[in-house]
Amino acid sequence: MDLRPSSIAKRERILEAAEARFLEVGFDAVTMADIAERADVAKQTLYAHFGSKEALFVGLVTGITTGTSAQVQPVEVPDGAAAADVLEAYLARQLDAVLQPRVLAVRRLVIGEVVRFPALAEALWHHGPRLGIERIGALLAVLVERGALHVSDVPAAATQLNWLVMGEPVNAAMLRGDAALPSARERAAIVQGAVRVFLAAYGT
Amino acid sequence: MDLRPSSIAKRERILEAAEARFLEVGFDAVTMADIAERADVAKQTLYAHFGSKEALFVGLVTGITTGTSAQVQPVEVPDGAAAADVLEAYLARQLDAVLQPRVLAVRRLVIGEVVRFPALAEALWHHGPRLGIERIGALLAVLVERGALHVSDVPAAATQLNWLVMGEPVNAAMLRGDAALPSARERAAIVQGAVRVFLAAYGT
Repeated sequence: MDLRPSSIAKRERILEAAEARFLEVGFDAVTMADIAERADVAKQTLYAHFGSKEALFVGLVTGITTGTSAQVQPVEVPDGAAAADVLEAYLARQLDAVLQPRVLAVRRLVIGEVVRFPALAEALWHHGPRLGIERIGALLAVLVERGALHVSDVPAAATQLNWLVMGEPVNAAMLRGDAALPSARERAAIVQGAVRVFLAAYGT
Repeated sequence: MDLRPSSIAKRERILEAAEARFLEVGFDAVTMADIAERADVAKQTLYAHFGSKEALFVGLVTGITTGTSAQVQPVEVPDGAAAADVLEAYLARQLDAVLQPRVLAVRRLVIGEVVRFPALAEALWHHGPRLGIERIGALLAVLVERGALHVSDVPAAATQLNWLVMGEPVNAAMLRGDAALPSARERAAIVQGAVRVFLAAYGT
């Protein structure tokens, strides 16, 4: 792969242009010529980076999903930390990362294209919700180890906690658009309420 | 509206044909001529029933969403019934109704078209998840009245219970397709686990 700075900059410009065009008009209506024009690169440069519109779509979605997951930094779990504080801090970060308009827009686009791109949707699932649930599970395992939680089936409990927090805001955003996104205060209430329910079942 | 049996039968044939074509190739790629041919009606008959492809899409989605909600029959709440039994019975029905492949397929299609049809997605939200949560809330209110639950914020608790059950299977189905649908045994485990967590927080 060509890794000169000018080439990397062009690749970034192409991905930005592709994101803008795919989100504006959908996968079908976009042409490679549109994207080359928007990115201000030659069509031949575009094809050198991404061999097809499909490859560009896959590169774009994978990049956004992986980048979003990387934004959710692990939290510290100091000795004696209250499980509620640890879980609330982590889940608030995860909720903010997922409720970004561009992340939601890509998710809508991929869901609409599941029939045509099943592998892409599967990849989004694995690098998105599935990875998020695994990380919650890792955090639960630490808290179990410290004696702060009683959980016999960590993956099942992590799945419950994930959707207690994410279920309403993510699904509302899928269907209602970004106008339905909860405020900072509403997000805090969702996270606290979810953790309260979860700890009633699994706390010590 | 023409309500003769032959006209109603044609309308049904048109909706079936439209559903098949929209789900096969997406909204954009379908033409009214395709649908008329598949339904075996004259194009003029098609336009007499639905004035445009958009109107047909709206009619189709509204019909499927409303029909799905109607399938979730209320459960009896006999005096002295255990809250766990009542909630499990109801949520199992709701989960089965939503996890029908055609319901999921329409939901994917609508999510993919949110930018173009925001009002349609909003209608699906109101006749789908939002209505489901309101019905759970009504059931919780009966159980609170009977002294079987302690809930101060019924809408918030209903939202939590809904996504404890629906979050994983619905979102997995959105991205992973119908192959990821849980078996009857897995569905029962999801419902029981969700109700157990919910009652730990809100049971008496």
